[in-house]
Amino acid sequence: MADFIIGIDGGGTSCRAAVADPQGTVLGRGKSGAANILTDPNHAIASITEAAEAAFRDAGIAHEEIANAHAFLGLAGTNVGNLAQYVRERLPFRHTDIDSDGLIALQGAIGDAEGSVAILGTGTIFMARRAGKVHYIGGWGFMIGDLGGGARLGQALLQEALLVHDGIHPRSAVTDAILTEFKHDPTAMVEFARLSKPGDFGRYAPLVFQHAEQMDPGALALIETAARSVNEALDAVTKIGGTERLCLLGGLAPLYPVWLEPRHRAILVEPQSDALTGAVALAANRFRTRTGGAAT
Amino acid sequence: MADFIIGIDGGGTSCRAAVADPQGTVLGRGKSGAANILTDPNHAIASITEAAEAAFRDAGIAHEEIANAHAFLGLAGTNVGNLAQYVRERLPFRHTDIDSDGLIALQGAIGDAEGSVAILGTGTIFMARRAGKVHYIGGWGFMIGDLGGGARLGQALLQEALLVHDGIHPRSAVTDAILTEFKHDPTAMVEFARLSKPGDFGRYAPLVFQHAEQMDPGALALIETAARSVNEALDAVTKIGGTERLCLLGGLAPLYPVWLEPRHRAILVEPQSDALTGAVALAANRFRTRTGGAAT
Repeated sequence: MADFIIGIDGGGTSCRAAVADPQGTVLGRGKSGAANILTDPNHAIASITEAAEAAFRDAGIAHEEIANAHAFLGLAGTNVGNLAQYVRERLPFRHTDIDSDGLIALQGAIGDAEGSVAILGTGTIFMARRAGKVHYIGGWGFMIGDLGGGARLGQALLQEALLVHDGIHPRSAVTDAILTEFKHDPTAMVEFARLSKPGDFGRYAPLVFQHAEQMDPGALALIETAARSVNEALDAVTKIGGTERLCLLGGLAPLYPVWLEPRHRAILVEPQSDALTGAVALAANRFRTRTGGAAT
Repeated sequence: MADFIIGIDGGGTSCRAAVADPQGTVLGRGKSGAANILTDPNHAIASITEAAEAAFRDAGIAHEEIANAHAFLGLAGTNVGNLAQYVRERLPFRHTDIDSDGLIALQGAIGDAEGSVAILGTGTIFMARRAGKVHYIGGWGFMIGDLGGGARLGQALLQEALLVHDGIHPRSAVTDAILTEFKHDPTAMVEFARLSKPGDFGRYAPLVFQHAEQMDPGALALIETAARSVNEALDAVTKIGGTERLCLLGGLAPLYPVWLEPRHRAILVEPQSDALTGAVALAANRFRTRTGGAAT
């Protein structure tokens, strides 16, 4: 029986896994659907298991070895209640460490350095590492947080389209696009919203950025509101993490810089590696700690 | 077997019923919990039935007569999908008409006159009657509509409290109140939000108005945003309904006027009667129409 470690990056839209040897050398990778334990814990458990199985398959390792794996999971929603405990008890690994999706992203992006990281995806979370300690800002989820994230932006777009439909706000290209998609039937939009998870709203976020680049007034108003929230959060996080480096991650990271304050743009750096790599690094690190450094 | 009519006013926080004779003279009243068919159709069915039973009990009419009653229901969420049909088929009445909560409120508030009505409660909807036709604006529900309503205001307050907790926004008396209530534990707030229905958020709205009256900056910012939405919708609705009369209804109606634009305040009138009375009037009207005017 060999020792395997597995790093998992579970977010609101997809879940990725990488299996590695104890030194952290990746042997195989796998991917599955959404793994947001706050929105739907049981679906998250299924997605995590599916991604892990796919990674083992990709590596050509026998399926049964999953039960011996040492996993490090970075998941959205771990800061809430005892959901992480619920999920941990239902996963197939020998040892399971669960921490935030933020921590693995930070580890991947800036390694062991000091600085700030903003994840701008379906949701938003801001992190700073200073004097070896990681500080978190935001990341509270779609319902009363994640301002500036894709889900809130998509939700705001649908809301704006209804205001246009009702004659309260003037039409613009971006609301025209939405109203055309929903055949000018507001009840279809309300029904979509009722059934939607954050990732479903988030799929409309790129549309808002595209129209804002064309200077569409409706899209500009939505992006300006979202960017104000992101700029405010960046002020708070760089106050802790310092002004040496700020790294943007997540699906909206390539789209946001042009809308940010110059003081934030000035310190942007590219990520060293991705969150999945960060998860593998943390899994290897925890494995070494548990085995007294024997594997290093 | 006597003919009875019953008017039902079902909203996001409570459901009221009044049983009457075919001339519309009320014989008894009943009340129960939330009846929002969009949020929870089965709970709405239970609440409606419970309120009707209580009204028959209050009138001293035999319970079995419910099966012979002619009901007119004004319910929130009837504009979405085929939820009204689903609910209608599961109610105990002989004949069931379902329309919006807005229509019964309008009928109660301004009778058969022309004008505008705004319901400012857990949600918000704006109506205008012009040339015998009723026009609706808003009322699309918590997720992508109902701006200025109690649910959205309470949600905004919790969101603001998290921004204060994270050091992004400055504290104020209203966010202090929320953070104290939740013992400064943001995860408890997120868990509350995850489990909350619109009415649960709405219970925090009066707190925002109270603090805004004291000129608390945090509360003022929230109320100004909400009032801007309401003012915009009132501009749109009075454009249709004219500037002769505007009637505010709902739990927030006594709190909003001071925050509205002078052009709206200038045309405010008191409601003639309540939505339940409007539902009874519409039930009597429909009964007369169906029975060829025999009961008039």
